Amino acid sequence: MIVQFTDFGITGPYMGQMEAVLRRLAPAVPVVTLFADAPAFRPRASAYLLAAYTPEFPEGTVFLCVVDPGVGGERACGFLEAKGRWFVGPDNGLLAIVARRAGACRWFELSHLPPEASATFHGRDVFAPAAARLAIGEGPAAIEKPVAAVLRPDWPDDLAEIVYIDGFGNAMTGIRASQIDAADDVIVGKDRLKRARTFSDVPQGEAFWYENSNGLVEVAVNGGRACEHLGLTIGDSVAISKV
Amino acid sequence: MIVQFTDFGITGPYMGQMEAVLRRLAPAVPVVTLFADAPAFRPRASAYLLAAYTPEFPEGTVFLCVVDPGVGGERACGFLEAKGRWFVGPDNGLLAIVARRAGACRWFELSHLPPEASATFHGRDVFAPAAARLAIGEGPAAIEKPVAAVLRPDWPDDLAEIVYIDGFGNAMTGIRASQIDAADDVIVGKDRLKRARTFSDVPQGEAFWYENSNGLVEVAVNGGRACEHLGLTIGDSVAISKV
Amino acid sequence: MIVQFTDFGITGPYMGQMEAVLRRLAPAVPVVTLFADAPAFRPRASAYLLAAYTPEFPEGTVFLCVVDPGVGGERACGFLEAKGRWFVGPDNGLLAIVARRAGACRWFELSHLPPEASATFHGRDVFAPAAARLAIGEGPAAIEKPVAAVLRPDWPDDLAEIVYIDGFGNAMTGIRASQIDAADDVIVGKDRLKRARTFSDVPQGEAFWYENSNGLVEVAVNGGRACEHLGLTIGDSVAISKV
Repeated sequence: MIVQFTDFGITGPYMGQMEAVLRRLAPAVPVVTLFADAPAFRPRASAYLLAAYTPEFPEGTVFLCVVDPGVGGERACGFLEAKGRWFVGPDNGLLAIVARRAGACRWFELSHLPPEASATFHGRDVFAPAAARLAIGEGPAAIEKPVAAVLRPDWPDDLAEIVYIDGFGNAMTGIRASQIDAADDVIVGKDRLKRARTFSDVPQGEAFWYENSNGLVEVAVNGGRACEHLGLTIGDSVAISKV
Repeated sequence: MIVQFTDFGITGPYMGQMEAVLRRLAPAVPVVTLFADAPAFRPRASAYLLAAYTPEFPEGTVFLCVVDPGVGGERACGFLEAKGRWFVGPDNGLLAIVARRAGACRWFELSHLPPEASATFHGRDVFAPAAARLAIGEGPAAIEKPVAAVLRPDWPDDLAEIVYIDGFGNAMTGIRASQIDAADDVIVGKDRLKRARTFSDVPQGEAFWYENSNGLVEVAVNGGRACEHLGLTIGDSVAISKV
Repeated sequence: MIVQFTDFGITGPYMGQMEAVLRRLAPAVPVVTLFADAPAFRPRASAYLLAAYTPEFPEGTVFLCVVDPGVGGERACGFLEAKGRWFVGPDNGLLAIVARRAGACRWFELSHLPPEASATFHGRDVFAPAAARLAIGEGPAAIEKPVAAVLRPDWPDDLAEIVYIDGFGNAMTGIRASQIDAADDVIVGKDRLKRARTFSDVPQGEAFWYENSNGLVEVAVNGGRACEHLGLTIGDSVAISKV
């Protein structure tokens, strides 16, 4: 399976153009879009999201990862092998947290870009063809390089920020719930929130935090939109507080 | 074919996560998304939409239906067999109108949830696996229960409310056009609307009602956005009036 | 491969209903959505977009093209054969620029609509079945007519207007970059913009024009939303100016 993770947005031709390349080069491989709306131009926030949402996929999955504000510039393109999965993408930090959590992993830099590649759509012209070739077992021409190229040692293990706001207005943080105490409060802006197990466990209209279905600390309001209720946007700081 | 009908929204990872489960468990079965933006948190409005949009699919279709504000709470999960089609979902009324219009039908309650199921994403962890197993002919473990569990006798046969507003701003009601007279007027707010056959039959900018391509009474404006023009939102009352 | 190009919008059931028809009638043919948000009700702007985004697909591709404000009215339905590709759609000008640039091409008008076709959803009831039949090599019943029916001789070769705004706020014009000089400036409103090769070649926050990855002149802001920064909407005029 090839899984798309991008910030291309849910409108426009871009996801379809990438998918068309995948279907031409790897016709027997299913393609699923996980995120088309990862945090735009933010490889750092996206890195924590990617690391949280990919473990549920089986070994052999190829992730096509494009959050790439430096497209056409100096950054390198390649793929990471981590825990039997492949992550195709730029070396701008987007793959840093997957690599860190995997422990042992390898980074392969594409040795050249296709000569006909456009300057601005490497998703279609560089990354999608590489992902398709990996998925059918024909690795693209690449040179193994130190994995340090994709790591970001100065980034924290968990990111105490809002990294994503979903269509319901729920705000995901870059913090794994397993790294804090269930009794801890989450502080966003001036609001101090208690943990609940699920929406229906708190009164209508009440804000709370919970461990979302991918293990992240997420801020929500039962029957409401937390992002507006609490005034949250991507990049806002979050604090964890012992009671 | 497996057909997805949810209120998960068109952004975010949720539809992709469900589709990935379907493709892993039922790789040969095509998956189509019918609605990802059914009325959020509204099983009642959604029930009339589901009943209007599913008859065009052939027998054997499995509908994966998730409009489930009570996820993780006390409501039961199961599947309805109706007219040779399967409807997987919660027993919160979402399947009530499909069941009522089918006449003879059967309801099977899942006998247990997967132990690893999250508290908040039963779409991925409970309903999608059940739908995939139905689609490949391996029914999930379930116990037949009285269909009364999903019926809502106090809900009307047709719902005189706006149940959906589409991307063009057209407002669908929960009323089947076959249940009213073509000469009847539709009253929304202070506006009394005449029937037309199609958009190009009325002048530019004029509001009208018509029988939409799935048989519902729908309010529209030729070349304009009816929801803004007439100030309509989901849940607004609609009246039918003899001329 | 069948490629969908419509203005149905990214919400609602319409794309899924068309895709379900395609999967039933042509189960072995992959389906990709290129645009679901082509300029709504604007066959002219859409025609330049379609002509720019289809050459990257291989021969044999069937394009299902529906930007059709006159649905249910007098316009004819059919399919264009151009450069070994098929374009199914209405004769309202949507296919005009594809036809003009192809040179030799042929237009086939559907000899009748399916008797059960709705008045308002020819995408599902007329165009999708025709596209599926073309894709499996069973042409639908149609009569060759003069290609003049789809041409629009009074439309320019390149359209000096904004034809599309993508999710990043970038504004595409209907002008092919190959038709102007790289040293030319692009004028939108009161802003005169220089060309750049890619985003990372200009300072953060600066507006520029570039040849997008499908050959169109596109207006963008590095790290910002050009449509808001420069106040652009679909239909706005664009001028090309020698320095």
